[in-house]
Amino acid sequence: MTSTLSTVPCKVIVDAMGGDNAPLICVQGAVQAQKENSDIEVFLIGRKLELEKILKEQTLYFDPERIIDASEVIEMGDKPAEAIKVKKDSSIVRGCELIRSGKYDAFVSAGNTGAMMAASTFIIGRIAGISRATMGSFFPNESGITTIFDVGANVDSKPMHLLEFALMGSIFVREIYGITNPKIGLLSVGEEDSKGNKVTLETFALLKKTNLNFIGNIEGRDILKGTVHIVLCDGFVGNIVLKFGEGFKSFLQHLLKQQAEKSLYAKIVLLMARNTLRKAMKSVDPQEYGGVPLLGVKGISIIGHGSSGPKAIKNMVLRAREMHQKRIVQRIGDAVKEYGLEKESDKNDQ
Amino acid sequence: MTSTLSTVPCKVIVDAMGGDNAPLICVQGAVQAQKENSDIEVFLIGRKLELEKILKEQTLYFDPERIIDASEVIEMGDKPAEAIKVKKDSSIVRGCELIRSGKYDAFVSAGNTGAMMAASTFIIGRIAGISRATMGSFFPNESGITTIFDVGANVDSKPMHLLEFALMGSIFVREIYGITNPKIGLLSVGEEDSKGNKVTLETFALLKKTNLNFIGNIEGRDILKGTVHIVLCDGFVGNIVLKFGEGFKSFLQHLLKQQAEKSLYAKIVLLMARNTLRKAMKSVDPQEYGGVPLLGVKGISIIGHGSSGPKAIKNMVLRAREMHQKRIVQRIGDAVKEYGLEKESDKNDQ
Repeated sequence: MTSTLSTVPCKVIVDAMGGDNAPLICVQGAVQAQKENSDIEVFLIGRKLELEKILKEQTLYFDPERIIDASEVIEMGDKPAEAIKVKKDSSIVRGCELIRSGKYDAFVSAGNTGAMMAASTFIIGRIAGISRATMGSFFPNESGITTIFDVGANVDSKPMHLLEFALMGSIFVREIYGITNPKIGLLSVGEEDSKGNKVTLETFALLKKTNLNFIGNIEGRDILKGTVHIVLCDGFVGNIVLKFGEGFKSFLQHLLKQQAEKSLYAKIVLLMARNTLRKAMKSVDPQEYGGVPLLGVKGISIIGHGSSGPKAIKNMVLRAREMHQKRIVQRIGDAVKEYGLEKESDKNDQ
Repeated sequence: MTSTLSTVPCKVIVDAMGGDNAPLICVQGAVQAQKENSDIEVFLIGRKLELEKILKEQTLYFDPERIIDASEVIEMGDKPAEAIKVKKDSSIVRGCELIRSGKYDAFVSAGNTGAMMAASTFIIGRIAGISRATMGSFFPNESGITTIFDVGANVDSKPMHLLEFALMGSIFVREIYGITNPKIGLLSVGEEDSKGNKVTLETFALLKKTNLNFIGNIEGRDILKGTVHIVLCDGFVGNIVLKFGEGFKSFLQHLLKQQAEKSLYAKIVLLMARNTLRKAMKSVDPQEYGGVPLLGVKGISIIGHGSSGPKAIKNMVLRAREMHQKRIVQRIGDAVKEYGLEKESDKNDQ
């Protein structure tokens, strides 16, 4: 069935107005993605006149029929819940509506994260049986990639929510990275079964009863070690860890600059090692990952970093195609039924 | 009053049996601390015969009358609560008893962290009005040092506990780093007042009512930026962040090794830059900080990293002296009274 589906072009809408450097980088990323992939139909959504002007200025070609006009813009600083109510003709709201219509396969945006999560959850809607959608993220580790669920969509998650995240994360990692039975670790303050807070202790007991590949508690140091494929945690913890990790690169640059200022020798060797250091740090560059998926909604919604460049936008489009080809949304729906979560959902809904 | 006190030598007991490389490194650290500081009386507690043998082998001098015999050892893997009950003649239990006796000023150990926290809390006892003791830690930042409270002593902290941590942390940072009115940030998932989980939102409201220098919510990225002097969080979050950060150095080494294996040029420039890189990373070395204080107990208790070397042990002794000279314990007691926490304590005790 997958092979049949993959012959039909995947329709991906790119939010042209999302991100710190929109619309320019979004247009560039979309053009690039389209040029290189004939099995994707890329669409741009945003202020049509503005986009056409950019295309002209940059001497880029993009099929004008694939530019969807949306007059409003949800800014990075807008309050999500309010913005999606008020700005009905924004690229984010309209993009999610088009996904709900079923005529398009995926929506990607580097815009206001909260607004993307809210619009995806409320407009596209959650998969039956899923009480909370989850946003995952990626960390390079010593042997590959660690995924971490949740990184900010949810705070005060209940054990049942964490179970849902584990289930959705497992499907994502299995399908996208081809890891048959991904190892899940519960992020805690010690490896022993008895370590944790009230929620993780209950989650531990719950996960033990499933047939997920749950290996037990892990600690903060295991994230970069790559002890597990999936790090499971509440979004409050995951978001803090993610943002803390994002600060490493600039902190390292600061430390090196300090040394360079102290001695001429240091300055010279660091200049010589500059490219090597840059290459080494490439794996921690969010641009490479091409956005993070919001799992649990009835469609493909990918959220990019505000600082995304054209490459990140392109990678988000490619990730969208992959999620579409591998039928992640349908597979999550199937797993929910298999696990009997549909009945549980009402109890855990908030 | 401080000046009168500081002329009396400060009596610091070093746990000779604590840490991955005990007793050797503890003996070395204690000898070094004693040699360099005539205003400190250093004591060693542990298996006396074993310690005397090491001193002889290493041709080191340490006053035999300052070696306190304790026949048992709490191992790194022992369960804290059980260990302090069963191993009554262990260096950790005996050390804390000696602090309670009032005849010694401070106890430092690189041993089992949980056992040190439990023994300090239950044997030395908490300051009246403090419902939970807190363990802080240090992160270098782009302009100095960020302290983070709590890093593992407490999970499921209530807003009132976080207020206590903020108060104790403020006194510590003010006295030790000489920062008059240290800035406190509440670690959360966004800077806006409305961002957070149930506990941080309540804590936010509580802190706003105090005269502490609370600047509001901060995010994970602010830890290394040095936006605040004190990062306030529940011990579950703090412990994960701390351990995640500890993994950064070895992950960077892994990334550089990868590059060195890819090209001869990379190998050569990295070899040349080796010392410079090492120096740059020195600020993230836990050895430099000399252990973390457990605040809120009626005595000075400093807990070191299991991997502590002689230098870290020595630095723990120096930190103990500083805390003694600056009367941190008394100042916390005074602040508790001033804030009227004594009356609140029973409600929040667990």
